[in-house]
Amino acid sequence: MTQDNYKEIAAKKLAERDAKFIKEWLVPEDKLPGPEVKDVLSFPRECGFLTPSEIAITEAEGTEILQKIKDRVWTAYDVASAFGHRATIAHQLTNCLSEIFFEEGLQMAKELDEYYEKTGQLKGPLHGLPISLKDNLNIKGQPTSIGFVGFAFSPEKFDKDAVLVEMLRDMGAVFYVKTNVPVAMMMAESINHIYGNTVNPLNRDLTSGGSSGGEAALIAMKGSPIGVGSDIGGSLRIPASLQNIFTIRSSGGRFPTYGARSGLPGLESVNSVNGPMSTSLDTLELYSKLVIDGEPWLKDGKVIEIPWRDVELPEKLTIAVLRDDGVVHPSPGILRGVDIAVQALKKQGHDIIEWDPKDHERLDAIITEFFLADGGIHCKEYAGLTGEPFFPGMKMYTTCKEKGVSELWDLHAERTTLTKNYLDRWAATKTNTKSGKPIDMILMPVSPYSGCANGKFRYVGYTAVFNALDFTAGTVPVTRADKAIDVKDPGYVPKSERDKMVQDLLDTDEVHGGAISVQVVGRRLQEEKVIKMMRVVAKAVGTDKYWH
Amino acid sequence: MTQDNYKEIAAKKLAERDAKFIKEWLVPEDKLPGPEVKDVLSFPRECGFLTPSEIAITEAEGTEILQKIKDRVWTAYDVASAFGHRATIAHQLTNCLSEIFFEEGLQMAKELDEYYEKTGQLKGPLHGLPISLKDNLNIKGQPTSIGFVGFAFSPEKFDKDAVLVEMLRDMGAVFYVKTNVPVAMMMAESINHIYGNTVNPLNRDLTSGGSSGGEAALIAMKGSPIGVGSDIGGSLRIPASLQNIFTIRSSGGRFPTYGARSGLPGLESVNSVNGPMSTSLDTLELYSKLVIDGEPWLKDGKVIEIPWRDVELPEKLTIAVLRDDGVVHPSPGILRGVDIAVQALKKQGHDIIEWDPKDHERLDAIITEFFLADGGIHCKEYAGLTGEPFFPGMKMYTTCKEKGVSELWDLHAERTTLTKNYLDRWAATKTNTKSGKPIDMILMPVSPYSGCANGKFRYVGYTAVFNALDFTAGTVPVTRADKAIDVKDPGYVPKSERDKMVQDLLDTDEVHGGAISVQVVGRRLQEEKVIKMMRVVAKAVGTDKYWH
Repeated sequence: MTQDNYKEIAAKKLAERDAKFIKEWLVPEDKLPGPEVKDVLSFPRECGFLTPSEIAITEAEGTEILQKIKDRVWTAYDVASAFGHRATIAHQLTNCLSEIFFEEGLQMAKELDEYYEKTGQLKGPLHGLPISLKDNLNIKGQPTSIGFVGFAFSPEKFDKDAVLVEMLRDMGAVFYVKTNVPVAMMMAESINHIYGNTVNPLNRDLTSGGSSGGEAALIAMKGSPIGVGSDIGGSLRIPASLQNIFTIRSSGGRFPTYGARSGLPGLESVNSVNGPMSTSLDTLELYSKLVIDGEPWLKDGKVIEIPWRDVELPEKLTIAVLRDDGVVHPSPGILRGVDIAVQALKKQGHDIIEWDPKDHERLDAIITEFFLADGGIHCKEYAGLTGEPFFPGMKMYTTCKEKGVSELWDLHAERTTLTKNYLDRWAATKTNTKSGKPIDMILMPVSPYSGCANGKFRYVGYTAVFNALDFTAGTVPVTRADKAIDVKDPGYVPKSERDKMVQDLLDTDEVHGGAISVQVVGRRLQEEKVIKMMRVVAKAVGTDKYWH
Repeated sequence: MTQDNYKEIAAKKLAERDAKFIKEWLVPEDKLPGPEVKDVLSFPRECGFLTPSEIAITEAEGTEILQKIKDRVWTAYDVASAFGHRATIAHQLTNCLSEIFFEEGLQMAKELDEYYEKTGQLKGPLHGLPISLKDNLNIKGQPTSIGFVGFAFSPEKFDKDAVLVEMLRDMGAVFYVKTNVPVAMMMAESINHIYGNTVNPLNRDLTSGGSSGGEAALIAMKGSPIGVGSDIGGSLRIPASLQNIFTIRSSGGRFPTYGARSGLPGLESVNSVNGPMSTSLDTLELYSKLVIDGEPWLKDGKVIEIPWRDVELPEKLTIAVLRDDGVVHPSPGILRGVDIAVQALKKQGHDIIEWDPKDHERLDAIITEFFLADGGIHCKEYAGLTGEPFFPGMKMYTTCKEKGVSELWDLHAERTTLTKNYLDRWAATKTNTKSGKPIDMILMPVSPYSGCANGKFRYVGYTAVFNALDFTAGTVPVTRADKAIDVKDPGYVPKSERDKMVQDLLDTDEVHGGAISVQVVGRRLQEEKVIKMMRVVAKAVGTDKYWH
């Protein structure tokens, strides 16, 4: 194996992908904005290469698209074509796509139209809705490289859909792209040796985040009305927050995961879950309900048999606010975002108390130990297939030592106790709330970053804690970073080496225009309630229709 | 540490326990049946040492006891006293108790009576019901030795109830005994160096099973109306089946487990669950509903938020029968028991198909690897506290090698696939059933044993498979072994070394009078449905009121 072998394979793969673009959909190189144009969100609408109909379709919410297909205003083919076209442009601007199968998507759409024409029936409740998929979800007929060059052609094609993909297909969804991820999906920036880096369309100097970064960039560009990402330490929430879109990280066992490829296969100390990402809360909620209505527990042993629940929120929510986790201080933009949300929610009469981030640092340390518990053996094996090197953000997988199971058990036992203590503290808030009941949610940052320059993402503690606890957590956009307002406190003294590293890398000029979202955290398996609470927060800050 | 050190500590502990018996409740040694009396089930009723009132109370179902306390027919004190007395006699005959706290139980009962007298209110829905607890559940003020001499006085007292115990206490339950277990609860016979072996009251030459053997023997003697055991590979179902009582092994996450002591702490590849054991299905169902109605998910992070569900069974069930798991051939008594159940269910019009035990052998092998994955480090540490030796049935914990986490992940991944395949085979039965729907349950042996002589239990594969799959499974008594009917097939050729070992140890004369139960298996998290189906099976074979 020569050092360059992996480059050859990657180049071949990249060329094959690029050959799959539909030529007429590509914006000519010389018509693309130059690198000096940071914010490219409005380019697709304004570039003149999309028809008014394509713009109308791609800027509609998923729920509206479904209705218009049903009402025969748009055909599934129109819709697939519009999103394929816009996804192409989104990719040209952000490098967000991994696998491309526009032709297959158009064919699926055509068959759906014919079926509807012939029978008068929709194939299912997602008839004709394009759904983009994170690279890790196996689709029949496509490979799944999850950022490893060694997986680029191995296998060349999966012969079965993942359980979730099969369900969505049966409901009438149209597949057309998979989206870029970091190697093994274990970094918070979406970079690998096949496809390179996915940048952020709000500001292309910034990272799209990860590991569902390709998905988030595509969706923010409206190249997809809804996509599926996954989250094992923040991989849905971090990119969603960095692109100001909605997502929900369910607890383990709500959505089916069987048939997704993993860089850490068999890791069960923490569950990788998948979930929807969208510019539309309505579409996100509809998707969630439909997947669960499909009884995935009959097809995937890890899914818990909890039907979709109609939840009624109390008129006034009780909200605990966490501004700083005591480990890494959030950027000025993030602190402002939390404050905007708090003030807006207070104004509407919701009861706000403070939340103590007790044990967050230890929970984050434990989950990191879970990720590294196999001594990086699986990742090293996969990288070793071609000899590709590890990115700096993955170096720890080459230096960590495999744990014995005895030590793993001790970490599990400790986490069990910390989780119990967290629940007890949650329940104990009832003595401190106006309602006399425990808090409904924690409102807090998703990460310290109100935008983060490419290559500078360092801290996932704000999200990973809830993977360790297996709590439900969603993201809600609030505003965008503004270098004129979001200035560093020159007197701030970092509380630790880790904090110092993050603060030193933060340049508030650089992240201008970056996204500012907040995290809405509920207890374990509170997906329906968290979505409803996300809506309350979004309405309060005026972002429930932020994108529409 | 001398070799005899552990014996001294064990002797001290045993003497302390024995000193806690209430003298007047003990049957004089010379009035106890001699060792030639195998079946001692009727002794308490016939020995003349229990009053008619004590007999009436202890032979009532738990549901009836609750009603009679509510109606002021019996006081909680009467009830606690009657069960304490009968538990004492049960212990004298089977050696079923570990911790004894009759005085505390009587005091709890007295306070409940006073509360009821004073307020006119019951403390809760279990007001005055004695509940026996398996030794592993921590109770405030008591130790938890789980069969390790080194834990006999360490700590001397736990300062907190387990979550479940606290919930039951708040509902008004009365605690008075903990029951004997095998060392670390990792053998299928309840023997350890402190308390010795618990024998089976149906035939004292037979084992009570394990690890909830003390619990099952006590309950079969009516020394407790309902008890709590636990199950990680069959530890509820095996002893329940060997004593012909009812139990249900829930899937992980229905009942709270926080605050139970484990011999394999932090093992999460397979969940140890606890569950009720009773002679009364009504009481078992009531208990299950009440615990879940108590919202244990607010107190224990491992509990899933699924409220108690009212389940309606189809009028005619579809049942897949598994007679032989292809690894170890069941005894003639067990095969007869399954056949009795099948014929009775057929007669009532239920649809019976066959079940292929595909992958059972591998699933059983995988779960054994999970148990041994820490290289026995935890068990060796606990035994090492006093230098106590390992029983032959635990020897593998001294010889196994600690696994690396990488290998553990591979086993997880394999189990995930096997579980998916099992679910797919379950769903695929719909093409083979009269209803056109998948099967409702699997009906099968609990173990190969229609009674098993002390020291001869060798195979847990019939139960452990469902721990590996995390399916729900209950036990239903059918009949008792009869040496005149249940004779070995002289032409049977064992299919493996393991099978031969079991067959060679089986003596159908020796197990005469042993219990014959069947196992009712539902999918994951189907507790309500499985309890309802247990009732259907029990009614069909005429054992729904077997004990009452």
